Amino acid sequence: MRDLVVGVDAGGTRTRVLVASRRGDVLGRSDGGPGNPTAHGVPAALESVSTAIVKALGDADPGRVARVLVAVAGISGPGGPALADALIERLAGYGFRCPVQLRADIAAAYAGGTDADEGYVLVAGTGAVAGEVKAGELTRFVDGNGWLLGDDGGGFWIGRQAVRAVLAALDGSGEPTALVDQLARAWAIAPSRDAVLAAAYAEPPVHLSGLAPLVVAAHDHGDPVASRIVASAAEALTRALAALAPRPGRPLVLAGGVLTGDSPVAARVVEVVDARWSLAPLPARDTAAGAAWLALSQMTPTPPAGTHARLIDT
Amino acid sequence: MRDLVVGVDAGGTRTRVLVASRRGDVLGRSDGGPGNPTAHGVPAALESVSTAIVKALGDADPGRVARVLVAVAGISGPGGPALADALIERLAGYGFRCPVQLRADIAAAYAGGTDADEGYVLVAGTGAVAGEVKAGELTRFVDGNGWLLGDDGGGFWIGRQAVRAVLAALDGSGEPTALVDQLARAWAIAPSRDAVLAAAYAEPPVHLSGLAPLVVAAHDHGDPVASRIVASAAEALTRALAALAPRPGRPLVLAGGVLTGDSPVAARVVEVVDARWSLAPLPARDTAAGAAWLALSQMTPTPPAGTHARLIDT
Repeated sequence: MRDLVVGVDAGGTRTRVLVASRRGDVLGRSDGGPGNPTAHGVPAALESVSTAIVKALGDADPGRVARVLVAVAGISGPGGPALADALIERLAGYGFRCPVQLRADIAAAYAGGTDADEGYVLVAGTGAVAGEVKAGELTRFVDGNGWLLGDDGGGFWIGRQAVRAVLAALDGSGEPTALVDQLARAWAIAPSRDAVLAAAYAEPPVHLSGLAPLVVAAHDHGDPVASRIVASAAEALTRALAALAPRPGRPLVLAGGVLTGDSPVAARVVEVVDARWSLAPLPARDTAAGAAWLALSQMTPTPPAGTHARLIDT
Repeated sequence: MRDLVVGVDAGGTRTRVLVASRRGDVLGRSDGGPGNPTAHGVPAALESVSTAIVKALGDADPGRVARVLVAVAGISGPGGPALADALIERLAGYGFRCPVQLRADIAAAYAGGTDADEGYVLVAGTGAVAGEVKAGELTRFVDGNGWLLGDDGGGFWIGRQAVRAVLAALDGSGEPTALVDQLARAWAIAPSRDAVLAAAYAEPPVHLSGLAPLVVAAHDHGDPVASRIVASAAEALTRALAALAPRPGRPLVLAGGVLTGDSPVAARVVEVVDARWSLAPLPARDTAAGAAWLALSQMTPTPPAGTHARLIDT
C-alpha cells in the first residue's frame, strides 16, 4: 500500500525532507546539503536531495511512497526539469515507484504556513520573492530575479547594502556606522576600503548574504545606518507585494531567514501590510511540510480534517 | 639620449598607447587588447600592454624611452604591482632601460583633459569614480567600488537598471518600456522573463554594460523609463562628486564612454555641476596622452609651454 508522501525543500543552503502519512503524521525528517540545481548544478543537487530522502525514509519500504514533491527556487530555469528527471531515475534505483514532482519553493513556503485557498506569500531568504495563491495554486509572483538583477530586500541585497554602507563610511561619502568594525571582525580583515573590496570580490557574490545578521544586530543596537537598511529592505519587500495588489483580509505567509525568527524586517513588513491591506501575517513553519501538504492535496482533493495542522505543527 | 615618453591607458576593454617627445609632439600611437590586470589577469594584461607599447614605438630605439607610465584602474589591488614588475622585466628584454610606473586611471583621465593643478574628474565607463586633484596629484576619490558594490551611474550600473526595468515591465510591477523589445532584439531572445533571466545570468555580470547605449537611444526616442535611468545615473554621478565637496570654479574633466560623445548623462551632469558648484566641465581627450603628460611632468617640473596642448590636441 502506498501510504506515505515525501516533501522536500531543496534550498540553496540545505535540503530538508519530511516523510508523512496520508493523514499528516510526520514519520521521518532529515537535513542534507545544498539542493538547488541552478545554484549548485544538477549532480550536486541530485546527490543532496536523494541522500536526504533515503535518510528521512529510514527503514520504511520505498515502495510505500505515493509521491515525492520537491520545492525548489528557479523552477522555470533548465535546472528544475533536469533535477526531476535525474531524481526519478535515481529513486527508481532505490525501489521508489511513484511520481516525482517539482513545485516552486514559494508555493511550498505558502503551504507551510497555511492551507487557505487564497492568500499571499513573501519569501526573503538569500533571495526575495512575493507570490499570490488562488484556488491552492501559485498564480503570480513578483521579483525573485536573483542577486544580479533583483531579490530586493533579501539576504544578499541586505548584505550588499551593508558593504556599500561600510565603503561609504570609509570614503567619507556616508555616515559612520558600527557596521565598519563588525564587518572587519566578521571577515577578519582591516577596516579599510582596499581590504573590504578585496574580501568582497574574492568570494562568489552570494556570500554577502552572510552579512544580513550583522545588519539586524547593529539595528538592534541602535545603529542608524543599519536601521535604514532594515527599513529599506522592508520597503522593497512590501513594494513587491504591492505589485500583486493584495485583496484585504487574506493571509500573508512570511518565509525565509530574513522574515522569520525575531526579525526587525518582518516587524516593519507586518506593520505596513496591516495598515495598507489588512492582511493577516502568518509565519511559515516548514517548507518541507508545505511540500508534503502539496503532495497530499494533489492526491486527495480534501485531505482529512487536521492533516495540515499535524504536518506543520510537529 | 632618452628623449621619449610612453603613456599607456590599460583599460578593461582595450589598451591605448601614445609615444611622445619631451616637448609633447606625438610620434606614435597604437591600440591593443584589454590591459586591466584585475579584470583579465596579469599575463593577459602584460601581453596586451607590452605588445601595444612595442607597436607604438615602431622603429624607434627602445633605449630612447625615458619613462613608461601605465594608467590602470584598481591600482590598489594586487594586480597593479604585479603588472608593473612583469612589464619591467618584459620591456627590459626588448631593450628598454627606463622606469615603468603605474598610476590610477582617473589621474591620467584628468591629465588627458587639463593640466590645471587643481580640479575634479568624473569617470563613467563600465565603472564610475569621482576624483579630486590637488597640486597635480590625485588626493581623494569616491566610489570606483566595482560592479558588485558600487560604480553607481557607470555603464554596468545603467545596463543593470535597464534589465531591472525590463523585468518590472514584464511582471507588471513597472511601466511598459521600449527597452523590452530593444533588449530582446539586442540579445536575440524572446521578450519574456525567463529568457531575459537566462541570458542575463549566462554571461559574466559586466556584459550588462553593453546595454548602456540602448538606454541612451531609448531616452533619445522619448522613452520615459529610459529617461529616468539616464536621470538617476546622472544623479548617482553627481552624488559621488558632491562627496568631494567641490570648490567652485575648478575644472571638471568628464571621462569614459557614458560621459563623452553626445551623452544625455553628461548633459544632465553638466547642468547640475554648473548650478551647484560653478565647475567648468571639460571633455577628457585621451587618457594615454594624459599618462604621457604625467610621465613628462614627473621628469620636468615645468615642461615647455604648449606641451600639454600638443599632447592632447593631436
